[in-house]
Amino acid sequence: MSGNTSATPGTAGRRLGLIVAGLGKIARDQHLPALAACMAVDLVATADPQTAAIPGVPHYPSLAAALGAHPGADAVAVCTPPQYRHAVAAEAIAAGRHVLLEKPPAATLTEMDDLVARADAAGLSLFATWHSRFAPAVAPAANWLAGRRIRRIAVTWKENVRRWHPGQAWIWQPGGIGVFDTGINALSILTALLPGRLHLRAADLDVPDNCAMPIAARLRFAAIDGAEVTADFDWLLPDPPVWEIAIDTDDGPLVMSGGGRRLVAGDRLLVDAPDGEYAAIYDHFAALVAAGRSDADVSPFRLVADAFMIGRQRHVASFLDN
Amino acid sequence: MSGNTSATPGTAGRRLGLIVAGLGKIARDQHLPALAACMAVDLVATADPQTAAIPGVPHYPSLAAALGAHPGADAVAVCTPPQYRHAVAAEAIAAGRHVLLEKPPAATLTEMDDLVARADAAGLSLFATWHSRFAPAVAPAANWLAGRRIRRIAVTWKENVRRWHPGQAWIWQPGGIGVFDTGINALSILTALLPGRLHLRAADLDVPDNCAMPIAARLRFAAIDGAEVTADFDWLLPDPPVWEIAIDTDDGPLVMSGGGRRLVAGDRLLVDAPDGEYAAIYDHFAALVAAGRSDADVSPFRLVADAFMIGRQRHVASFLDN
Repeated sequence: MSGNTSATPGTAGRRLGLIVAGLGKIARDQHLPALAACMAVDLVATADPQTAAIPGVPHYPSLAAALGAHPGADAVAVCTPPQYRHAVAAEAIAAGRHVLLEKPPAATLTEMDDLVARADAAGLSLFATWHSRFAPAVAPAANWLAGRRIRRIAVTWKENVRRWHPGQAWIWQPGGIGVFDTGINALSILTALLPGRLHLRAADLDVPDNCAMPIAARLRFAAIDGAEVTADFDWLLPDPPVWEIAIDTDDGPLVMSGGGRRLVAGDRLLVDAPDGEYAAIYDHFAALVAAGRSDADVSPFRLVADAFMIGRQRHVASFLDN
Repeated sequence: MSGNTSATPGTAGRRLGLIVAGLGKIARDQHLPALAACMAVDLVATADPQTAAIPGVPHYPSLAAALGAHPGADAVAVCTPPQYRHAVAAEAIAAGRHVLLEKPPAATLTEMDDLVARADAAGLSLFATWHSRFAPAVAPAANWLAGRRIRRIAVTWKENVRRWHPGQAWIWQPGGIGVFDTGINALSILTALLPGRLHLRAADLDVPDNCAMPIAARLRFAAIDGAEVTADFDWLLPDPPVWEIAIDTDDGPLVMSGGGRRLVAGDRLLVDAPDGEYAAIYDHFAALVAAGRSDADVSPFRLVADAFMIGRQRHVASFLDN
């Protein structure tokens, strides 16, 4: 994108004014606490047609109303279900606001590429977030792997969907991507560790009889320099969850666990740190806006599309939320 | 891509030397006859591990052998099944040859984007062909539509798969995309008529019990300025095939039929012309190479990936080829 002019909001050293669109579980669990502690971004309003307001924050039943009432708000964080993200983000861009997208960034790849084109044409920052890339073990894992030879990668990303996605009907609908809503976190880490090297070869998807989207998926990637790469996603594991990437190398095993919070090389603990993903996301967003840049890597979402395109779907028992 | 230097093969006004990789049905039905009549391209060799040679043309059991025996051959046309296209095209690019891809361009979107990046980095031309875009009615249809208001678009692309894809097992395997192998021709015309305007909203896919890929698909796109857009793909229609795009406008109906060979506006016949798609493809490829450019529009393939990603799959009766 072209650089912003000095008149662009958010570039003058002051805090970025943000509207959060969509006040569901991810907004309340992650975005709002991170924003409460963030020095670079001010939450100025929320918009949601259904849920109640946050105490002390102006709330509107639509993004249009929020945009109209806060013409000085620089940016919109799109935390709606993915089926609504393109329309909401396009509305924010048309109103001249920078946009942060929760993951997955849209319902389709065409929608995501359209948002990239719109933000670019408008000279606005678009940040398609992959929160797991900001987990504390990711950068140390990349450093540790540099210069070592990988022999095998096994991703295991399994959790209890009833605990982590209670009552989220949209996740089972077209555009919701099912178990990939969780698995894409692993894919976002993997594509960060091995940029441009992951090619999907086979996918088996288990789709409950009463759902459109899969509840489990097993992926096999093309070998990387002879190293086998597989991923196993499952939403029916009883607690506790397993969010792990195990990498065998010529210098012993590297295991990232806890979704990227813990890293062990051989018997040596390299990282064991608390979650700071969304705080880092908002700091990065403010920096992107200040620099007049975008960050919209499609590669994790494209691998999900690849998995659906080459995947063999098998129908399994109906899923009941409780 | 950057411009080629004067040393690059194929830019000196002489005919482009071409290796055809993959001698299956599409190569024999379309590529070889078009090449026999093409003034801009010379067929110098063929490569295929399984099929017999063409009389009078040097033949090799692998692309590597053909590349080695013909170091002066400028380009490779990749006519293998899509599951092999990425590996074959990457091999050609690594050997410094320009590449033409049959459609679909690869098995996954990640593979296609990787080929674009490789060709670009090597300063070579990559042409991801969409043969139906070269059908004689496409450009006249675009011209006729300019300035008219579209009220409805209905795509009907139905044929007898036993006649048009006899014994092609790869088409039912992962990466073969099933009925979309035909339907993508319609999508390539539609994306040419309405660039950047097609967003998929819903897809219903019928997958035979013994196949991985669909035999029928019904698509609904987001309305375009209020106009409903749908597509209906089916591989079980007895002959003759129906390859039709019907567009209602404020100035009456426009109907493209015969896969783009015939165009009728109201009761007025605008186009009724024979097939010249592959001749035009090779002329365009030679022009791309001469100009040091690529032509690799992902949009039809991306819509297919979108259809798989948001599609609801339904199992239907097993498919028997004969």
